[in-house]
Amino acid sequence: MASAVAGPEIERLIQLLARLPGLGPRSARRAALFLIKKREAVMAPLTGALQTAMEKIVVCKTCGNIDTHEPCTVCTDPRRDQSILVVVADVADLWALERANAVNARYHVLGGTLSPLDGVGPQDLSIDALISRAHGEEVKELILALNATVDGQTTAHYITELLSDAGVKVTRLAHGVPVGGELDYLDEGTLSAAMKQRTLF
Amino acid sequence: MASAVAGPEIERLIQLLARLPGLGPRSARRAALFLIKKREAVMAPLTGALQTAMEKIVVCKTCGNIDTHEPCTVCTDPRRDQSILVVVADVADLWALERANAVNARYHVLGGTLSPLDGVGPQDLSIDALISRAHGEEVKELILALNATVDGQTTAHYITELLSDAGVKVTRLAHGVPVGGELDYLDEGTLSAAMKQRTLF
Repeated sequence: MASAVAGPEIERLIQLLARLPGLGPRSARRAALFLIKKREAVMAPLTGALQTAMEKIVVCKTCGNIDTHEPCTVCTDPRRDQSILVVVADVADLWALERANAVNARYHVLGGTLSPLDGVGPQDLSIDALISRAHGEEVKELILALNATVDGQTTAHYITELLSDAGVKVTRLAHGVPVGGELDYLDEGTLSAAMKQRTLF
Repeated sequence: MASAVAGPEIERLIQLLARLPGLGPRSARRAALFLIKKREAVMAPLTGALQTAMEKIVVCKTCGNIDTHEPCTVCTDPRRDQSILVVVADVADLWALERANAVNARYHVLGGTLSPLDGVGPQDLSIDALISRAHGEEVKELILALNATVDGQTTAHYITELLSDAGVKVTRLAHGVPVGGELDYLDEGTLSAAMKQRTLF
């Protein structure tokens, strides 16, 4: 509580900042003070950027990416391989693959992974839309770029089942030693996967 | 960079969020995605709270506290002991003391501490204003609630020097074992200070 001395407006700003991932109550207070001190340099532009985002950002109805127009830049980019769809759980994963320049294809954002424990079923994800995209378009390959977790792999299996008769090649990301990683620190699962899927040097 | 796929508006929002203390580039991306996903629940109220803060928040000309009116709630509170001024480096310290209910007095926010290495001199802090407050008002005691760092203690000494002929009692916070702290983890300086300033049980 800073309310007693700083008023409800600042208290509300702190509470909202504390809802951001990565900021707790203490760092939200620091962030609020920082913003108030850097009123012109940071707070004004951030307020403006949030307003712009509120007005302009839309979710692409085709792939689930976020952008300022619809369909999104990725979906309308003619230089991308139209025959490959990369299936990701979240927009953050799409961004990560794009930063890595990992693939030059289009995406499909599921909006999460199947998670019976958290009550996330197929109807909560955009799986129906994915199936119809995989059937109806010129798609030849579906790359399942899902997390190597139980939920991610359950989702991958579920999608593979549904597409068994679609005539689409379904692939998944390789398991192995992370680039720059040390063997000593890796778990047994990763090590044996890397050994099984060893490639010619 | 998420700019290639997400557009300059989102990229700008990420860059501005990354300037907040406690958020790096990666967590700023997560925060931006979180905001976009929680558009109505978080992004809209946060935008509003920032706008309100931009419009309403002022720095108290008397003590340097931030509030939505001037003079601030603390300065105008008649139930506070008018004879004591608590000197703090930053508004965050004022908030911390208020949260702890440590003292029922008025404050003076210096705006930092003297730091020759960082080029912070007396003219960069509100020391002149403090001296005139200490002289001119009904102030009997000045509590120096500054960090127990080199810069904090340098600032404390500097202020004490300036006020040597003002007829004001200058005190500082006690050093000692933090409540809940274990002796084994404390540095020698704290332990010997706690021993020297031991009190009757």
